[in-house]
Amino acid sequence: MIGAGQLARMTVAPAEALGVNLLLFAESDQDSAAQIAPHVVGDYRDLEALKDFAKKCDFVTFEHELVPIAVIKGLEAAGVKVFPTSDSFQYSQNKALMRQRLTEYPAPKWKLINDGDNLLDFPFIAKSISGGYDGRGVWKIKNHDDLDEVLNEIPQLLIEELVEFDFEIAVMVARSAHSQAVTWAPTQTIQSDGICTSTISPAPKLSLDLAEKAQHLALSIANDLALIGVMAVEMFVKGEQLFINELAMRPHNSGHWTIEGAKTSQFEQHLRAILDLPLGDPSMVAPYAVMGNILGGDKTDMFRPYLHLMARNPDLKFHQYKKEIRKGRKVGHVTVVGENLLELTEVIAHARDYMSGEIDE
Amino acid sequence: MIGAGQLARMTVAPAEALGVNLLLFAESDQDSAAQIAPHVVGDYRDLEALKDFAKKCDFVTFEHELVPIAVIKGLEAAGVKVFPTSDSFQYSQNKALMRQRLTEYPAPKWKLINDGDNLLDFPFIAKSISGGYDGRGVWKIKNHDDLDEVLNEIPQLLIEELVEFDFEIAVMVARSAHSQAVTWAPTQTIQSDGICTSTISPAPKLSLDLAEKAQHLALSIANDLALIGVMAVEMFVKGEQLFINELAMRPHNSGHWTIEGAKTSQFEQHLRAILDLPLGDPSMVAPYAVMGNILGGDKTDMFRPYLHLMARNPDLKFHQYKKEIRKGRKVGHVTVVGENLLELTEVIAHARDYMSGEIDE
Repeated sequence: MIGAGQLARMTVAPAEALGVNLLLFAESDQDSAAQIAPHVVGDYRDLEALKDFAKKCDFVTFEHELVPIAVIKGLEAAGVKVFPTSDSFQYSQNKALMRQRLTEYPAPKWKLINDGDNLLDFPFIAKSISGGYDGRGVWKIKNHDDLDEVLNEIPQLLIEELVEFDFEIAVMVARSAHSQAVTWAPTQTIQSDGICTSTISPAPKLSLDLAEKAQHLALSIANDLALIGVMAVEMFVKGEQLFINELAMRPHNSGHWTIEGAKTSQFEQHLRAILDLPLGDPSMVAPYAVMGNILGGDKTDMFRPYLHLMARNPDLKFHQYKKEIRKGRKVGHVTVVGENLLELTEVIAHARDYMSGEIDE
Repeated sequence: MIGAGQLARMTVAPAEALGVNLLLFAESDQDSAAQIAPHVVGDYRDLEALKDFAKKCDFVTFEHELVPIAVIKGLEAAGVKVFPTSDSFQYSQNKALMRQRLTEYPAPKWKLINDGDNLLDFPFIAKSISGGYDGRGVWKIKNHDDLDEVLNEIPQLLIEELVEFDFEIAVMVARSAHSQAVTWAPTQTIQSDGICTSTISPAPKLSLDLAEKAQHLALSIANDLALIGVMAVEMFVKGEQLFINELAMRPHNSGHWTIEGAKTSQFEQHLRAILDLPLGDPSMVAPYAVMGNILGGDKTDMFRPYLHLMARNPDLKFHQYKKEIRKGRKVGHVTVVGENLLELTEVIAHARDYMSGEIDE
């Protein structure tokens, strides 16, 4: 697996269980997953370094979207089995390509621009074509001044209609080389400043009809793009309409709840998919699963709050990424599963606020 | 953790999630857990080697019962925090000490012997005082000839009344340094030739009264022995009577179902207990959990049966230990959770037989 952040870290457990020898290509020995798992250190833009790495592997996959497509194609040309393939992965890396490829799917109106002519109605959304995540590379454009400021930095932008959505969902989908595909229950994602703060699965406000439609869309996109691996399909929900927002062809924050909340986690499913093993059952083990991201706050010592929360909620499941605490950085997450959604969301909101220092008890 | 077999391997996942840096003391780089986790290699009987290992650790624990008590005491004398402590652990290692210490608990009649005088009525059970497991070190003695044969090899034996039990159970219990203690649902263990082949949780034939009594016994023993960590208390059930059979102060085969079947697994709980973290919720996530051990059989290539079973039962959870396949050796286990006990036991029986080569489809 290229990358050794928290997504790789959470892949260690299913690899251990499935008996898959997981080797990581890390940026540093101090990366979240490199701290605990066999790895080599190198630069993921360096084709020769990745070729050497690939010689030690039967299959190669990614935990992030930063490896240049040319490098992935270089690996493929050298006979390395890389999943998702570059043909699929380009749509995850490049938002303009994705919009052009998925024109038959419901989406916000969009345009590619490199100047201030032929815009959409203000306000609209501008996105960098690649490299953005967690609110970075996305701007709300209210007027020409806003736009000029962004265009000054980034010469080509994808602009999209600002959809006044009711809420946001993500559907995780997995597809194997054999074309077997499954989805998990659609998940409501709750964002603040463009960063996902918590998720609720299944999305409680989503009608059964729309949930099924969302799952069909995700399965259909996975098939159209010949996905091998797992993918998050983020969507806006407005009334009875769905709009495709973004794709991410890797285990994704909106699927973290599957570790405790589903019979097969996104991390296990990703391994099964890329190794072309039969996929596991994605059904839920409880009526609801609620996940909260722990963002670095003013507390640098996370140990005391951790103890307090463990004592307060014995059913709270912790995932520590062992990353240096920086304000606003995702340093862990917590999940709780059960029947009473009100209680579950209270537990997660309290845990998030307590860990990040918003409240003291 | 001293030891790097499958129990250490299954501790890797909760250590990853809790953010605990797990370092193993392995016998070889090829040990089940050493293949995937940071480790040093050495001889667990070598006090100096263990002292060097302990310098790298805040706490030391075990995954097996082979470290001599004198060596554990040596670590303690050097100021190492070892859990369970030698004072507790001796009762897990030494069956005679355990019987002497737990005289107020219900048990089969027992005696320590070193000759053929003052025996119990034939037939009875003879056990080596330490070192036995998986049916090794246990003999059914029908007459003086049987006994002489064993005494020839082993000069002192623990002999125990042969209890004609209805079935066997194990209760997993965890206790932290703060004396917080919890048990999981009692588990029925099904043995063949002294080896556990499968478990059903909660033990379906056990009355609620007896289940509560069994849990009380386990909690009481944990408290009396000042356990820090997890412990399996194996018991015979005969009518409304319970008999303490064996103790094992470590994560145990009879608790493997807790990985998928309980909110907190025995492996996570062991880490919480020895690190004196608040214990996690041991409640079950489904009405039943059934686990089956995969024993090495005639098939040396386990990959094809693995594929077949994954396709047949998408909800079957696999744990591969990555140990060399030898006939009768535990090389993995499978677990399934759900509501229909008949279906669950069928799935596990089929998976066990298929993996070990007993059936072909």
